[in-house]
Amino acid sequence: MRTEDLDTPAVLVDLDRVERNLCRAQDYADRHGLRLRPHIKTHKLVRFARWQMDLGAHGITCQKLGEAECMAAGGIADILVTYNILGAAKLRRLAELHARVRMAVVADSREVVEGYAATFTDPGHRLRVLVECDTGAGRCGVQTPREALELARTVAAAPGLAFAGLMTFQPRDATAATEAWLAEARDLLAAAGLPPATVSAGGTPDLFRAAEIASATEYRPGTYIYSDRMQVAWGHGTLEDCALTVLTTVVARPTAERAILDAGSKVLAADTAPVPGHGHIREYPEAVIRGLSEEHAIVDVSACPHEPRIGERVRVIPNHVCPVVNLTDRVHLLRGDRVEEIVPVDARGRVT
Amino acid sequence: MRTEDLDTPAVLVDLDRVERNLCRAQDYADRHGLRLRPHIKTHKLVRFARWQMDLGAHGITCQKLGEAECMAAGGIADILVTYNILGAAKLRRLAELHARVRMAVVADSREVVEGYAATFTDPGHRLRVLVECDTGAGRCGVQTPREALELARTVAAAPGLAFAGLMTFQPRDATAATEAWLAEARDLLAAAGLPPATVSAGGTPDLFRAAEIASATEYRPGTYIYSDRMQVAWGHGTLEDCALTVLTTVVARPTAERAILDAGSKVLAADTAPVPGHGHIREYPEAVIRGLSEEHAIVDVSACPHEPRIGERVRVIPNHVCPVVNLTDRVHLLRGDRVEEIVPVDARGRVT
Repeated sequence: MRTEDLDTPAVLVDLDRVERNLCRAQDYADRHGLRLRPHIKTHKLVRFARWQMDLGAHGITCQKLGEAECMAAGGIADILVTYNILGAAKLRRLAELHARVRMAVVADSREVVEGYAATFTDPGHRLRVLVECDTGAGRCGVQTPREALELARTVAAAPGLAFAGLMTFQPRDATAATEAWLAEARDLLAAAGLPPATVSAGGTPDLFRAAEIASATEYRPGTYIYSDRMQVAWGHGTLEDCALTVLTTVVARPTAERAILDAGSKVLAADTAPVPGHGHIREYPEAVIRGLSEEHAIVDVSACPHEPRIGERVRVIPNHVCPVVNLTDRVHLLRGDRVEEIVPVDARGRVT
Repeated sequence: MRTEDLDTPAVLVDLDRVERNLCRAQDYADRHGLRLRPHIKTHKLVRFARWQMDLGAHGITCQKLGEAECMAAGGIADILVTYNILGAAKLRRLAELHARVRMAVVADSREVVEGYAATFTDPGHRLRVLVECDTGAGRCGVQTPREALELARTVAAAPGLAFAGLMTFQPRDATAATEAWLAEARDLLAAAGLPPATVSAGGTPDLFRAAEIASATEYRPGTYIYSDRMQVAWGHGTLEDCALTVLTTVVARPTAERAILDAGSKVLAADTAPVPGHGHIREYPEAVIRGLSEEHAIVDVSACPHEPRIGERVRVIPNHVCPVVNLTDRVHLLRGDRVEEIVPVDARGRVT
């Protein structure tokens, strides 16, 4: 089967580009003595998690227990869930995972640690807990290195927990500030007899500057496997690295300036990027996707040297690839123009 | 089971509110002699399509053949697909649907009509085609009443097609301009011996002003069944009409001003609204969801008279409810606080 045989819209994944992206990241990590722990939220496929492990990844990262359950069932044996796990139902599921694979989780508050401590009580099989640090991104995390130390002490005091280190999802373009924060926390911890075994940073935009965060021992990139328009706008690689595209059909040409594609926010996702428009049309780089409704892309083709015709098929690089994967039930794996396999997105829609 | 027994995030649907929303719309349509043809893209549930039909809807609207196939399999027998259907694969599927249920589709170009004409050739069982009109929304549709007439003639000239009328998805707050456009087209068509049997307008924002589009014989609201924050901002009802909420847990309180919920863009969708923030927290109306990452909502609680605590559960009214439904595999149907049933979203992810 070839791409011309596919109905549209269809989510395509170029395996050659995936391979290049995976190898480039692993090479960088190896060269700089960093352990790679890819975040599987981007691809949500067991087979790609295995590929990442085969290339040298130290383990994987998940954001949801449902993703971790899916990956553990697929044979991945070392999983960090970078999320505060709260509530009886989730703690039960975490315990089941912890019984089967090498698990670690994060915490940024006493309340979250208390939930772990009440659930995990076996000093012979401790749950590994990293303290999440807000090094400037303004999401989760303790606010200061001193708070990190306090929370690490709370973790270390629980018989069934092991303080495993520090974790941050640092802001973009702030490697120096991130390093200053983490180094201070590491030194405080070391002085208190709690040296962090792991210092984990993450994010694709700064993947190839990860070594500037000298305290980091591991790095968790996610989007790098496919890349997208947003990553390119932020300076990570080029559009030639983007491995995931959405194959669409021009379904209308209402005016000379306007073309309509059969892919809207339910396929391309509504995420905006630091550049105008809702995606990059490979065949019409001058075109601007100026709006998405749920099932239509509204494209301004006035700057294009030639105009797309009704029925023509084009490939769109999405602004943000992660929600695109989470919207689609299946992806089409390509070598060149040949569809090698159509596979379900294993961990799609695992919301809890 | 009660809502407190559910893990989060969970998509909840209040059946009492749904019933009120459905009845109010059907009453309005009945009072004004309009046929109601609800768009099922919002709920994607066979049971709710049946409920709409039982209350008096004339048929349903779908945006994708996959949705229509799902609804036809569920016993819905009158379906309008408001989408240009192009390409051999889709035309084959359309023919299968046309053999089983009363189908209609739209066209806004000669190319699309040619596809229909080549596929549907039986004068004894014509495919009904409405001409889509761009009355100002700037998406699909012929641009002028005269173009509508020309395309209607093309449809009528095909032995296997029947010209069934006009269809528009009109801009908001433009009932007078929409009526002027449609009345002119209707008169041109009537004078040419092609009076449109159906003139179909749509959109929830102007649902209760639909009668101002006097030429319209039918109306296609979608979002009205659940409503959302965007509809309320546009003047359609109040937050008390919003029937779908996302149950979430406060998973972090990194600072006095900041709370983090376990629902991000993969549950709430990234759609923005004409009011600030990414959703309305029912228990904390002064809170502003100022950002979403994929699995987190970042909430500014500085204006709240009391602060949410870690582990507390809150319900969020999303900005735009349609993509939320398309992201979730199941919805929880409630009467009051009791979970009556957990049902799969029948037509979720039907992208083609």
